[in-house]
Amino acid sequence: MTTATIHPFDPLRPEEITRAGKIVRSEFVEEDVNFRVITLKEPPKAVMIGYLEHEHRRQLERQAPLRCARVELIAKNTSNKPELFELLVNLDDDVIISRKRLEGKHSYIDSSYMQKVEAACLADERVQEEIRKLKLPLGSTPIVEAWAYATDGMNDMTERITMCWFYCRHIEHPDANYYAYPLDVCAEVSEQLRVTRVYRLPGAPNERVNNADHPYDHQKIHATSASEYHPDLRPKPRDTTKPYQVVQPEGPSFKIQGNSLNWEKWSFRVGFNYREGLTLHDIRYDGRSLFYRLSLAEMFVPYGDPRSPYPRKGAFDLGNDGAGINANNLKLGCDCLGTIKYFDAWHNTQSGEPLKMPNVVCCHEQDDGILWKHTNFRTGNAVVTRSRMLVLQTIITVSNYEYIFAFQFCQDASIFYEVRATGILSTVPHHLEQQGRTPCGTVVAPGVLAPYHQHLFSLRIDPALDGHKNSLVIEESKPMPTGDAAVHNPFGVGYYTEDRYVEQEGGFDLDISKARVFKFLNENKINPITGTPVGFKLLPQPSQMLLAHPDSFHAKRSEFGKHAVWVTHYEDDDHFPAGRYTMQSLGGDGIASQIQKRRAAGNAQSVRNADIVVWHTFGSTHNPRIEDWPVMPNEKMTVGLKPVNFFTGNPGLDVAVSTQEKNKSVLYTEETDEKQDTCCGARL
Amino acid sequence: MTTATIHPFDPLRPEEITRAGKIVRSEFVEEDVNFRVITLKEPPKAVMIGYLEHEHRRQLERQAPLRCARVELIAKNTSNKPELFELLVNLDDDVIISRKRLEGKHSYIDSSYMQKVEAACLADERVQEEIRKLKLPLGSTPIVEAWAYATDGMNDMTERITMCWFYCRHIEHPDANYYAYPLDVCAEVSEQLRVTRVYRLPGAPNERVNNADHPYDHQKIHATSASEYHPDLRPKPRDTTKPYQVVQPEGPSFKIQGNSLNWEKWSFRVGFNYREGLTLHDIRYDGRSLFYRLSLAEMFVPYGDPRSPYPRKGAFDLGNDGAGINANNLKLGCDCLGTIKYFDAWHNTQSGEPLKMPNVVCCHEQDDGILWKHTNFRTGNAVVTRSRMLVLQTIITVSNYEYIFAFQFCQDASIFYEVRATGILSTVPHHLEQQGRTPCGTVVAPGVLAPYHQHLFSLRIDPALDGHKNSLVIEESKPMPTGDAAVHNPFGVGYYTEDRYVEQEGGFDLDISKARVFKFLNENKINPITGTPVGFKLLPQPSQMLLAHPDSFHAKRSEFGKHAVWVTHYEDDDHFPAGRYTMQSLGGDGIASQIQKRRAAGNAQSVRNADIVVWHTFGSTHNPRIEDWPVMPNEKMTVGLKPVNFFTGNPGLDVAVSTQEKNKSVLYTEETDEKQDTCCGARL
Repeated sequence: MTTATIHPFDPLRPEEITRAGKIVRSEFVEEDVNFRVITLKEPPKAVMIGYLEHEHRRQLERQAPLRCARVELIAKNTSNKPELFELLVNLDDDVIISRKRLEGKHSYIDSSYMQKVEAACLADERVQEEIRKLKLPLGSTPIVEAWAYATDGMNDMTERITMCWFYCRHIEHPDANYYAYPLDVCAEVSEQLRVTRVYRLPGAPNERVNNADHPYDHQKIHATSASEYHPDLRPKPRDTTKPYQVVQPEGPSFKIQGNSLNWEKWSFRVGFNYREGLTLHDIRYDGRSLFYRLSLAEMFVPYGDPRSPYPRKGAFDLGNDGAGINANNLKLGCDCLGTIKYFDAWHNTQSGEPLKMPNVVCCHEQDDGILWKHTNFRTGNAVVTRSRMLVLQTIITVSNYEYIFAFQFCQDASIFYEVRATGILSTVPHHLEQQGRTPCGTVVAPGVLAPYHQHLFSLRIDPALDGHKNSLVIEESKPMPTGDAAVHNPFGVGYYTEDRYVEQEGGFDLDISKARVFKFLNENKINPITGTPVGFKLLPQPSQMLLAHPDSFHAKRSEFGKHAVWVTHYEDDDHFPAGRYTMQSLGGDGIASQIQKRRAAGNAQSVRNADIVVWHTFGSTHNPRIEDWPVMPNEKMTVGLKPVNFFTGNPGLDVAVSTQEKNKSVLYTEETDEKQDTCCGARL
Repeated sequence: MTTATIHPFDPLRPEEITRAGKIVRSEFVEEDVNFRVITLKEPPKAVMIGYLEHEHRRQLERQAPLRCARVELIAKNTSNKPELFELLVNLDDDVIISRKRLEGKHSYIDSSYMQKVEAACLADERVQEEIRKLKLPLGSTPIVEAWAYATDGMNDMTERITMCWFYCRHIEHPDANYYAYPLDVCAEVSEQLRVTRVYRLPGAPNERVNNADHPYDHQKIHATSASEYHPDLRPKPRDTTKPYQVVQPEGPSFKIQGNSLNWEKWSFRVGFNYREGLTLHDIRYDGRSLFYRLSLAEMFVPYGDPRSPYPRKGAFDLGNDGAGINANNLKLGCDCLGTIKYFDAWHNTQSGEPLKMPNVVCCHEQDDGILWKHTNFRTGNAVVTRSRMLVLQTIITVSNYEYIFAFQFCQDASIFYEVRATGILSTVPHHLEQQGRTPCGTVVAPGVLAPYHQHLFSLRIDPALDGHKNSLVIEESKPMPTGDAAVHNPFGVGYYTEDRYVEQEGGFDLDISKARVFKFLNENKINPITGTPVGFKLLPQPSQMLLAHPDSFHAKRSEFGKHAVWVTHYEDDDHFPAGRYTMQSLGGDGIASQIQKRRAAGNAQSVRNADIVVWHTFGSTHNPRIEDWPVMPNEKMTVGLKPVNFFTGNPGLDVAVSTQEKNKSVLYTEETDEKQDTCCGARL
């Protein structure tokens, strides 16, 4: 049996994908089938708890949970109408467990369909006529960028609609940055690849619809040095950056077997799926359970330009695009420095065969400066340790934009989740004479507006601190009252912390002014020294929440963007804070609605001392800078998880002190060039 | 002349310190003189602007400003009364420019005086009697930790008062962590080294004064492994962390001549003084002026325990202690990794001679992951650059605690200021039976309470963006109204930014919910592409402000802790947001009072399009975790400065793409150990 050494958290292996595909295909003999997803259906937690307990006690007689695949496919029947199906397949017995048709739902973006949309759009006569009217310079190539339609209430959403934005290349290079030349043409394409509308885009803040049919303004064509990023099209790069290499003469400190990773005192399992990309499971430190699962659950990118059709720009980069399916094939020495372990992933072809995605995750160590230091001022003796981090990085490309996601594990038992936004801004055309007057965008090049937008991420945290019954506590630091005889605070300097245990599911906001801290505690486990429940705390990335009006489709479709911290009672497969099917969704499927539905149905369970999931919404209100153009230097966001009275002391206290003998640093000796010195700063 | 190649921003050279000392000593023939400070008085900005313009145009005929020393000394006259003096010395002509006695002010902490205080305290009979009553175990050594007295209004502040806290070593090792054994004895020592009071400390939350005279509870003595950090006293450290080396085969990318530093497109000058430690001057990118000066201006650490005498714990770590004078002598391979340039500093002895402080600043490069990346999804071609940072790091020890300060320069023209807090928590005694009941502290070991406290830093930012007339602008991102006929927002998704120019000096708060951004703009310089003023923005570290009551001495003495962002009109020597003389200060000298005084006197100048200084207050409300014990893994805080429509594109666009050829990474090949695999996670 090929599954002999498969762990229940392991993604489906290629042979499992093949098998699931075959089993399912036999169910759809008549139809034209497009396999969108063949992925692991993770085992129920109730089953896994026992399994993991056995595993960590190294008990061999553990019962493996059922191995199960989730399959999503589009079947076209004889009337050529696409229908979305979800099936669950029992891979132990090769049988289909369930099959349902998902009425009114759409699968995530199909890149081969999008290519057909682009071709159909360019082949359309009205589109061709509109492009002719632009009178583009000779040799220019129009480019169509197909986007999922973000619901704005103006169309029936039962069929797929694609928004086609137009750009242009003025130079003959396949990697020329066409986002530097947005055209003011727009087209809409139907499920059946029919162009349903062609129109012009507004080019000024006060322009609501642009029917001028004017030609393309050739003054918008500018020097390549200002808008190109590809080395072929750039002047010679700076040569001042000297090589910098990371050498690990004894190899890395991690040990990897399959998807199991051990590093310093950490252990966890690496997962991956088409939607969330990298997932982490069964995270332990020094043998103690910390988190059952960590993953990015969703990302929403709403654009803030009110002019039609821009409200249709609102991307669910996980639900619509997929962080897994869009993961980059990472390259040694470029995306990752040092000694690197790469993880591959397996997706599926349209016909249900396995498709290898190489190097989608890199794993490596980084030096992170000083971990801790103390100098005894009485003896002058310094004790200093360096901080080593383990990084698991994955990078995704979503059309113009990229995100770099990294889980960072530290020797002091803290975890950081870092997001870097980079890539190319989404651009729209802008009249040249409107340069400075742009209430919701930044002009980044002549005739190029980069509209304001937000990036809202949802990090899903499934704590399992010394067990699966945990509580969410909101701590605030508050000044003690003065002038209150019952409180001893004669000098007015006293402050205290107040802990509020959250009892019900819901969303909460940050409050920096109260140093509000969200803690996950295990009330059943009291720290022997502090006398308080063991716990971890969230170090949030303080962020503005969704700006769109609560009644807007952006708001109704995202839901998680309303509050910074959400807590829900754990449910299997509840991984979707904006709903599972976000493509052209109408709203009402997100985390707030789910909570509301459970409450309305009388099914709301207390989240106190229960199996809870915490969701952190963070991101950026990205009002572009011109410095983000033509490709954006990374913008970092960081979320942390730190023990708070979980251990009985600094978990990194046993890290060996740093020595020059091991670290082999080099002393820089100053260049002395008297002439230079005299010439740039000397006193004569 | 020895000053031949001295730049006006260079700290005083040893021979200048000697000369200043000699000149001043000749003024105090009769008195016993203790030189506290002989430091550079930086030239007036009005003079420096012209000088720097000439310098950067490489004009040789520039007039050097007067070289001037500021001297602070304590002179004891025949009646042995210490008096504080400040003198300014013209080093070009060897004459004293000014001399004033500072009535009612105290100089910063004098470590040799503090040693005398400790000795006097231990020699005192009442202290000895109190220690006898404790009945410490045989071989235990009591230790006195002398602290500056934080004003609480209970004493006349004209003379120095020192608070003496008592600890104990139970093992014979000079680096044993005595903070693990706080004793409940306290003593106060006068300027004349007389013990004025001896008493017991409270040991329970509800205990206001402890007069029990009870002996030391021997059950508080615990295993060394829980409280010691020195390798001699620790079990064998973990041996899993493999060596990690940074190799720069062609040397570093920086070029240093004296205090002038060039790296990538950056140039600036490194300064250092006893109080602020590291200062940076005349910071430019690609030849364009960005900042006239950057420095940490103050740090306040108020403790939140209301019980007397703990309100007397409130440390101004710059004003009272000095970030320069307490800077560590950094070690190659331990404090810094890679190719390292060290800067030395010069202070002065009590007798006015130069005193070398070696290796107080290290300068090195770091790889910082990916700078920017884009993959063209149509061609699959990825272009990726790595981010190199230049780090200037200095580390200070203030009694039990350490701070690691680092300015980080990036290739995209951003600057980060990172603070890491580490070291040992300040501890107080606690009754064993009170373990869990601690409203304002955490029990970190038996009988050891680590009280709540705050760290509030003031980063002083003197912008000079393309010139010295700059403005502070508060940008907010706001939803567009809906249902307003005058505003086109039919789908409710529109949002816009609103800029408010600050006209008057004052303090401002952050507002994450509005994505409030503080920008420094030069209104006289319009970006040719965006059509908006060129600028930089502050990326603040969102922090709770001072918790102490506004009427408390903590609040009155710190002032800058009230708001996150302050703006003032530039004045020479205005570097002190909590006042210049913070030792036992009474308040009324800080940034708010200075603003108020100028306003009251009718001297308030507009800060719009003016020479402004921006002060950012940030820090942490540090409610200790047991994981911070016995030595704290670093807690990071980061402030950033980023261009916002200052350039005409990504300033790091010309960084060469990453290549494996230069970076020489190594591919990790999985270990395959079937037995292990089967034993920890396999399905049998």
